[in-house]
Amino acid sequence: MSGKNQTLQFKNKPRIISGMSVVGRREGSGPLGDRFDVVIPNAKYNEKTFEKGEQAMFRRAIVGAIEKAGLTPFDIDVLLAGDLLNQLVSSSYVARELPVCYLGLYSACSTMTECLTLGATLIDGGHIVRAACATGSHFATAERQYRYPLEYGCQRPPYSQWTATAAGCSILAAEGEGPAITHATIGRVVDYGINDLNNMGAAMAPAALDTLLAVFSDTGYCVGDFDAIFTGDLGRLGAEILRDLSGEQGLSLGQKYSDCGEMLFSREQNCYCGGSGAGCSASVLNSFILGKMNAGEYNRVLLLATGALMSPTTSYQGETIPCISHGVILENVK
Amino acid sequence: MSGKNQTLQFKNKPRIISGMSVVGRREGSGPLGDRFDVVIPNAKYNEKTFEKGEQAMFRRAIVGAIEKAGLTPFDIDVLLAGDLLNQLVSSSYVARELPVCYLGLYSACSTMTECLTLGATLIDGGHIVRAACATGSHFATAERQYRYPLEYGCQRPPYSQWTATAAGCSILAAEGEGPAITHATIGRVVDYGINDLNNMGAAMAPAALDTLLAVFSDTGYCVGDFDAIFTGDLGRLGAEILRDLSGEQGLSLGQKYSDCGEMLFSREQNCYCGGSGAGCSASVLNSFILGKMNAGEYNRVLLLATGALMSPTTSYQGETIPCISHGVILENVK
Repeated sequence: MSGKNQTLQFKNKPRIISGMSVVGRREGSGPLGDRFDVVIPNAKYNEKTFEKGEQAMFRRAIVGAIEKAGLTPFDIDVLLAGDLLNQLVSSSYVARELPVCYLGLYSACSTMTECLTLGATLIDGGHIVRAACATGSHFATAERQYRYPLEYGCQRPPYSQWTATAAGCSILAAEGEGPAITHATIGRVVDYGINDLNNMGAAMAPAALDTLLAVFSDTGYCVGDFDAIFTGDLGRLGAEILRDLSGEQGLSLGQKYSDCGEMLFSREQNCYCGGSGAGCSASVLNSFILGKMNAGEYNRVLLLATGALMSPTTSYQGETIPCISHGVILENVK
Repeated sequence: MSGKNQTLQFKNKPRIISGMSVVGRREGSGPLGDRFDVVIPNAKYNEKTFEKGEQAMFRRAIVGAIEKAGLTPFDIDVLLAGDLLNQLVSSSYVARELPVCYLGLYSACSTMTECLTLGATLIDGGHIVRAACATGSHFATAERQYRYPLEYGCQRPPYSQWTATAAGCSILAAEGEGPAITHATIGRVVDYGINDLNNMGAAMAPAALDTLLAVFSDTGYCVGDFDAIFTGDLGRLGAEILRDLSGEQGLSLGQKYSDCGEMLFSREQNCYCGGSGAGCSASVLNSFILGKMNAGEYNRVLLLATGALMSPTTSYQGETIPCISHGVILENVK
């Protein structure tokens, strides 16, 4: 990165040597259902509260990813993690149980790519050998915290999205088999003046565009250089807006572009415009995307997770919604 | 870092080329009052709400540090920042106004050293040239969010601490004048079973010890190798506990050790056991500590910011308080 270049290039190409996805029942019965590693049996995952259920989901994703890589928690140098709950408690309480260094990161629903960016930076610099990068979200805990408790039975507008109950963890390593993180593009905060807490897709699409343009301008790649381009959780409406905004910039995303939120639920599932939440891109990356890359069906992928950085307090105080998108390029290299 | 080594070593020695501290009136009339750059005139800093006042304080610290370094916001590659407010809104809303890439970090009151650790890692790896690292806290917003609104007039136990109204920003650069960050030690989550939200010092002291021992074991330094050792915000009781715990490990911290929370308020100010909050170590670092280093009075300093990672929800649900401490070593190098 130099001047206003936003993209880091990783010479040592840290690899994603394993990924684990743990999702709720609704996500498990969606179009990607058979791609996920674990579908939890109930919303509390056999715990007493939704929050403890979310923690259990995180634990399952992190420990599962470590085991899939043939490692133990003692082999992991740093856990980079964050979540949507205040004070990142899902991440921190799971970190408490593990013998690892811990860095808490918050970028709302773009936390997965922030974790991958900083995990890759630590490995690329030779500082650490293995990192666990994890995030997720839970429908019940997120609705309670950001909007209303589910018991209120509030109605939602048709352009709203459904917070995914899902967690994902990727194990990054200096060596091993798996797609490499070759570049990471750190986002800027973009605010287009949306103040409707139910219209996240419209709020986040301009941030996704900002980072998408930075990726192309910094790396010299164009749409055609990627086998697939994913956004995190714009949903159907947000993805449509991104296509429109990209078109205005002369970019045709075409069939190569998909949104993880749109992929997560079918229209028949009545999840409005699709999935949202940090678990959306985290679970799709660590199931569908890694699967396609490891099978050689994709060889170069751009993942732009997207996050809305407001809080209930700023909304009460009349603020609009600032958004961000961090991108990573994954590549099958020799 | 390799195996269970927690310490990163920065070969290219990123420098802190400037620091800015902005504090509230109570902090400004404390023992360090004349060290701070700006004392805000009122708790809302002329804004409508405490939260907007906190944002204004952040903005003043970040923009001030950039100006002090003789730079403009366009010269900064990445802002690494976090705060105590849910969804890091103080940091994110200020980032919205700046033409910089943004990474949101959360480590409660140890956020300052997490920002420095990751900022130094990005610069050391040659990815970026300059980073702004900022955090802070506000008495009124933190009390409202974590405990009770001030209007309730709740009484506090004598071992409680006073959340500092303070923000600090350091500008890190690949080249320039100022102390270098030579090492950073990433903390592990430590929970000693404290569940009293007013007794943060006791909860955090074991985490500070854990990282202190890691620093000594990883770097080979001993207490005598440092001109000064600071913890973030253990307060008087927590600092005493750290002295005791260190003594049990055969370490005598002696006169070299101080706690930023203890330094911030005099006993006569009736702030119980002293200051706390992310702004505590952030403001003391960017005033007193940088001042002493730039004057050559200190040449090697260890700063261990300390954070408690609970949330009000986990406390309601009966959980104990997990804590963490990230450390950085600052050194005057040629």
